[in-house]
Amino acid sequence: MASQEIRLIPLRGLPEILPGQDLTALIIEAAREQGTELQERDVVVITQKIVSKAEGRLVDLRDVTPSPFACEIAETYAKDARLVEIVLQESRRIVRMDHGVIITETKHGFVCANSGVDASNVPDKEVVALLPEDADRSAFGIRSSIMNLLGIDVAVVISDSFGRPWRDGIVDVAVGVAGMSAKRDYVDQKDPHGYNLRATVMATADELASAAELAMGKLERVPVVIVRGYDYPQGEGKATDLVRAPELDMFR
Amino acid sequence: MASQEIRLIPLRGLPEILPGQDLTALIIEAAREQGTELQERDVVVITQKIVSKAEGRLVDLRDVTPSPFACEIAETYAKDARLVEIVLQESRRIVRMDHGVIITETKHGFVCANSGVDASNVPDKEVVALLPEDADRSAFGIRSSIMNLLGIDVAVVISDSFGRPWRDGIVDVAVGVAGMSAKRDYVDQKDPHGYNLRATVMATADELASAAELAMGKLERVPVVIVRGYDYPQGEGKATDLVRAPELDMFR
Repeated sequence: MASQEIRLIPLRGLPEILPGQDLTALIIEAAREQGTELQERDVVVITQKIVSKAEGRLVDLRDVTPSPFACEIAETYAKDARLVEIVLQESRRIVRMDHGVIITETKHGFVCANSGVDASNVPDKEVVALLPEDADRSAFGIRSSIMNLLGIDVAVVISDSFGRPWRDGIVDVAVGVAGMSAKRDYVDQKDPHGYNLRATVMATADELASAAELAMGKLERVPVVIVRGYDYPQGEGKATDLVRAPELDMFR
Repeated sequence: MASQEIRLIPLRGLPEILPGQDLTALIIEAAREQGTELQERDVVVITQKIVSKAEGRLVDLRDVTPSPFACEIAETYAKDARLVEIVLQESRRIVRMDHGVIITETKHGFVCANSGVDASNVPDKEVVALLPEDADRSAFGIRSSIMNLLGIDVAVVISDSFGRPWRDGIVDVAVGVAGMSAKRDYVDQKDPHGYNLRATVMATADELASAAELAMGKLERVPVVIVRGYDYPQGEGKATDLVRAPELDMFR
């Protein structure tokens, strides 16, 4: 349980991340330089964009030949056909298309706009960033590196901004998790009045991603936030644990 | 913009809240007693349950006579017909019914399970709590009282736990907001690379609610969290600003 003070510490001073760079070493160094060295049981929340950059998950639109289907969608919605082509390639299926928005299910199982393909915060206007191929694996790798380099156990959350039905605006959610359970399960636990919290499973990793976003901001270069003092749920979770089972999803 | 350290400070020592009690006075007192007095530009996040209790938004199921329609639903889903009756009364329409879950649009416009009617954290097992009649008004009232009593300007967020399509687990979102804009709007602002953040509107009040939940936990009596150090978006926002316009909602 939490109920101690939690600190959201933005990490400054990270350089523009280039493909092949050792992101973990850069994060450790940046934390040290600003005097907030990583500590045992920190949660390190990292925006997907810099993980994708480090992993080279970038596509130059000048190299993309859109299919006739992509061209048709692009024309209908006044979009870049090359971008649509990438969105389709990154998707497993199209969930909805309307109002100029393409909502897909990604190969990971996430449902989001444009398969998570995004042109913001990329230096070259003709280059877009894809989601990491497996952001749970990315998170696992970063956590393992931190263990090896510093000898401490931390949790890692890789975050991205997703829209939601019914509610306006986007919020950051977890697309990669390592070193913690992605959910906190209160099923069959009792509240202070003895009431059985039958159906209460908190999407803890999503809440950590949203909390960290508050300390990031979109216009500054703060792609990493350290969450300190949070007693995160133990376990070997994955962000894909947060994907609702199709047979229980009423809004497929 | 944020990018300074943010603190999530759980408020302990609040008593069980009873109808008619002055919630603001109790919060101010609890903060003072634990040495974390409210400060200018804090965000005070308050769980809906204690607001509903203070406002007497409690229904004794023993006083409820379910309609034939409520009885039919209750029988199909093995629910308490009296509870179903309240859920229907609190709703504007039913969005989906399946897997034993009733998802409604509340009279406020929120889409959530059971119209937000909930039996957890209520002392009497036969009494359920409804959402505040107008949680934006509740938030406004609490903010005004804090201004009057302490002479400081704070933002207030009233939170509740909602499920989401596609993603498992629930997260806390804002059902009431006062003293800040509910969203942070980056439309037409540029990222560090000059990219136009065309469609980026963050649901800031929802992220504040989720962040605060991390410091609350469900099993302890921590219904209030002070978010300190967050440069929240200025404006006179409402939680209902976060309700997506029906004509733009692809999942009605």
